[in-house]
Amino acid sequence: MAKRTHICSEMLENLIGERVRLKGWVKRRRDLGQVIFVDLRDRSGFVQIVFNGEKNPEAFAAGEKVRNEYVIEVEGEVIGRDAENVNEKIETGAVEVMVDRIEVLNAAKGLPFVIEDKVDVSEDVRLKYRYLDLRRPKMQETMYLRHKTTKFIRDFLDEEAFMEIETPMLTKSTPEGARDYLVPSRVHHGEFYALPQSPQLFKQMLMVSGFERYYQVARCFRDEDLRADRQPEFTQVDIEASFMEKEDLLEMMEDMMVSLLEKVKGVKVDRPFQRLTYQDAMNRYGSDKPDTRFGMELVDVSEVGKNSGFKVFASTVEKGGAVKGICVKGVADQYSRKDLDGLGSFVEIYGAKGLAWLKVEADGELKGPIAKFFEASEREAIISSFEAEEGDVLFFVADKVRVTWDSLGALRQKFARDHDLIDQSKFNFLWVTEFPLLSYDEDEDRYVAEHHPFTRPVKEDEEKLVSEPENVRAEAYDLVLNGYELGGGSQRIYERHLQEKMFSALGFSEEEAKSQFGFLLDAFEYGTPPHGGIALGLDRLVMILAGRSNLRETIAFPKTASASCLLTKAPASVSDAQLDELNLSVKPKPEKDKE
Amino acid sequence: MAKRTHICSEMLENLIGERVRLKGWVKRRRDLGQVIFVDLRDRSGFVQIVFNGEKNPEAFAAGEKVRNEYVIEVEGEVIGRDAENVNEKIETGAVEVMVDRIEVLNAAKGLPFVIEDKVDVSEDVRLKYRYLDLRRPKMQETMYLRHKTTKFIRDFLDEEAFMEIETPMLTKSTPEGARDYLVPSRVHHGEFYALPQSPQLFKQMLMVSGFERYYQVARCFRDEDLRADRQPEFTQVDIEASFMEKEDLLEMMEDMMVSLLEKVKGVKVDRPFQRLTYQDAMNRYGSDKPDTRFGMELVDVSEVGKNSGFKVFASTVEKGGAVKGICVKGVADQYSRKDLDGLGSFVEIYGAKGLAWLKVEADGELKGPIAKFFEASEREAIISSFEAEEGDVLFFVADKVRVTWDSLGALRQKFARDHDLIDQSKFNFLWVTEFPLLSYDEDEDRYVAEHHPFTRPVKEDEEKLVSEPENVRAEAYDLVLNGYELGGGSQRIYERHLQEKMFSALGFSEEEAKSQFGFLLDAFEYGTPPHGGIALGLDRLVMILAGRSNLRETIAFPKTASASCLLTKAPASVSDAQLDELNLSVKPKPEKDKE
Repeated sequence: MAKRTHICSEMLENLIGERVRLKGWVKRRRDLGQVIFVDLRDRSGFVQIVFNGEKNPEAFAAGEKVRNEYVIEVEGEVIGRDAENVNEKIETGAVEVMVDRIEVLNAAKGLPFVIEDKVDVSEDVRLKYRYLDLRRPKMQETMYLRHKTTKFIRDFLDEEAFMEIETPMLTKSTPEGARDYLVPSRVHHGEFYALPQSPQLFKQMLMVSGFERYYQVARCFRDEDLRADRQPEFTQVDIEASFMEKEDLLEMMEDMMVSLLEKVKGVKVDRPFQRLTYQDAMNRYGSDKPDTRFGMELVDVSEVGKNSGFKVFASTVEKGGAVKGICVKGVADQYSRKDLDGLGSFVEIYGAKGLAWLKVEADGELKGPIAKFFEASEREAIISSFEAEEGDVLFFVADKVRVTWDSLGALRQKFARDHDLIDQSKFNFLWVTEFPLLSYDEDEDRYVAEHHPFTRPVKEDEEKLVSEPENVRAEAYDLVLNGYELGGGSQRIYERHLQEKMFSALGFSEEEAKSQFGFLLDAFEYGTPPHGGIALGLDRLVMILAGRSNLRETIAFPKTASASCLLTKAPASVSDAQLDELNLSVKPKPEKDKE
Repeated sequence: MAKRTHICSEMLENLIGERVRLKGWVKRRRDLGQVIFVDLRDRSGFVQIVFNGEKNPEAFAAGEKVRNEYVIEVEGEVIGRDAENVNEKIETGAVEVMVDRIEVLNAAKGLPFVIEDKVDVSEDVRLKYRYLDLRRPKMQETMYLRHKTTKFIRDFLDEEAFMEIETPMLTKSTPEGARDYLVPSRVHHGEFYALPQSPQLFKQMLMVSGFERYYQVARCFRDEDLRADRQPEFTQVDIEASFMEKEDLLEMMEDMMVSLLEKVKGVKVDRPFQRLTYQDAMNRYGSDKPDTRFGMELVDVSEVGKNSGFKVFASTVEKGGAVKGICVKGVADQYSRKDLDGLGSFVEIYGAKGLAWLKVEADGELKGPIAKFFEASEREAIISSFEAEEGDVLFFVADKVRVTWDSLGALRQKFARDHDLIDQSKFNFLWVTEFPLLSYDEDEDRYVAEHHPFTRPVKEDEEKLVSEPENVRAEAYDLVLNGYELGGGSQRIYERHLQEKMFSALGFSEEEAKSQFGFLLDAFEYGTPPHGGIALGLDRLVMILAGRSNLRETIAFPKTASASCLLTKAPASVSDAQLDELNLSVKPKPEKDKE
């Protein structure tokens, strides 16, 4: 083995006549008898190399034996291709390398799938052979995009005087939030560490310490049942700053995002980002992370519904509910009555009892099972509320407000996908603000923090913390991109009395608050500055930038939906000796509960 | 609250006459009756601010109430100090800020210790109030140094076309190496993840994937009994490269280290770094990570000892052992006979049966209990071997070679410390090469990997892997700085047959090898490039750069020697519900075994 002189992507016309030594993988091989053409691939790209039986019989003989994905080292001269053989589709298409020496560095047997982007293979097989899957151009690009994104963010924050500080992974389990991953201690009998769900408390401690500007690209863990867009371990860009007002932070984040998009995607995004309060986001889009790349906003027709002859609408409004709807433009002739009735089951998932619909006909006429319940003026009011035209279809949900939001918000997304209404080249950022601080948890029969227990209430709502907890707004802000929650931030509580009030609103006894968060309460008494911060989901950010729809495509070695690693076969059983050292025993598998 | 206009370190003469708004902590406060001087501290430094009772009675009244470590916001004019009041010792000493408005952002009660570097407080108290401890200037500086070091390394590796790729934290327990931290799986009954001891296997997989150049600043975990320089979780700069020969890698690492030292310490270090084989390092310094900032090398006097009248020496050599010694220059009159005899207990720790000594007198005379056993020619030989002079003390250990190395290596360090022989301004880098690949483990009654099982044997030693495993040298290299092992690297095995041979030399059955490392063996058959890499201990690197002697000083929130976090009180007990979900139960505490 000798040092390589060049990488494949450097094989351009300026090197014609030079001798080069390249190393890489056999991407493709065409044997034409006395000449063999091989596409040699390395990380940078690929170039055609030629084994010529007449000119270099020894190299040719060796070249005959290489197969796809062999690792080889070759030497030879860069030669220009004849005009008719120039391949304009590839960067190195003007030249080829005439090989006069080859060394096989490692062989490869037949692969379980070919190394191409459009390969029809199950995800399980891809994950089992992840080391091969990652050779595919799209995966290489995505990992590089992730690297560039991370690098950009670090550089940006460094410029803004943020200091990267590492916080512990072996920390303490806290009762709030999602389920913790636990790590048994060998030294402390029966005690456990928890893997962090976020560095929240530590970054607040760093503010107490006077670092003022902290960031970390931090691994976080949640032992939750997984969905397509969740992983048991995920990475967040974690940011916290003292003496920085909310407006300063939002401005900086916008600057970061706009610069990032320009740098890694070459896309210009307008500033300032749109802002919506939580109430407005829900009312207009039925979602606190709306995709604003398309319209189809929710319209409230409770007024019309209330007085109409359609009992379902009228009685819902009377009971404090609402009637809301969306208008899908120009699709009336694509849906049969049966299709439309069938959509009822879609909204049921979100708790809606039913989905009503009306097709808009010529001259302001409405067609559909419920059309008959509305008088002419009501029909007119409905049509004008939606600014509807002939050929549109209107969908209605009459239910508790929350249900109208959730069901119509989801339906809106569904139609946008089904009818391809989304401009995929757009990057629509949005701040959602004034989230509720608390929400009532029916299961736990207490209020829980919407964001986390350290989020500040809006000043003028502070006194409602005890009297009307559900009406307290938080100094919290979510950054939304194309319908995904990219991150959430807030200004934090920094006064002991307010934090104690918050814990009490969450139903903590004084003792519980002390035993779990005593160090935080104590810290607040030693000169804690006003502070706030934000955390961005890096996996999701990269997913959106890469135009993928699955987080697993952005992570080198992801887990499956059952939190397994198909490559290494983790988790796995361990030896009894290991369990003994931890003073643990595994309980027998419980029999399945009968339904 | 309003935005601050400046930070404290900007308060220089050029701002005289300007109005500023500052935010920070009360570092110190002197009340002179009608005038109060306060040192206001923020992350950047501090500046004197003045409350004047005559000029600004309102601000003065408020200023009277602030105490140390209060967080305040002040406004006022920057004024120049009279010549006699200029404080040249501090950066902002030419000015002060005349406060006309103050707002207390948060109060502070009396602190458990003062925020100064030279504060006499136990480490336990410091760790319990880590958020205050981190306010001390030295801790702030160390964290900033850590940030700069990390940033520099990332930028350097990015320039060298290394891609940062994140590898999993929830991975699989492997039998080799140190003890794993385990993470029980809730979904997979009785199964566990392990936290990574290093990303070794994943980074090798990334080489199989063709990324060619990978790095990561990776958190790693070892559940070992802790020493002063160990932490259960630690950070390593993890690097792996394909098609890069050992020499290229060493060269790049030297470049990185030299540039780092220049950048963050302003220190120039010569290249190339010194190199020693493992054998030479042990023979000359009694250590595989020698501190070369001072001499006092080990001298082998087995030849003299073998033929001498001193039975202990003669018989040791006869049985295959060695007699080695060190010479401590000019300290003879500092050690009484009793002192010298007392040092025997020091070497016992390293398994030595005894420590012999001789003081060098005028005219080549030797004094000490064993002097009488040597004839004149032998005394002469001894003196010339050590190039000893009057006033020196010679120390000897006669034992198995390994014991002479360990005991004299440690003794050498001790004397260097005791007699202050180390130039603390020096940064002495050293490569130690040709480590043994395997060593025999008496407890396990098998060979174990010195580095790890994926390290390549030196080409010409490959065939000894089965016949004389103890004589196989590894393609491994350690980077040593000032007597600390900064990192270790190696070229890796990339052929299935060689890896299988290695596993077999380690006593693995074919089945065990397959079940633990099957995916690695498989991967080697699909076109794995030659590769190698290195991992540097970031905590230790920062410790040396910061001139500290304890890893805990370089970590924001470290664990104690019993792996506890005194701030958050982790680990801690968890709820029965949490254990139930994991199908685990804690065994009762075993009674202490009687000795």
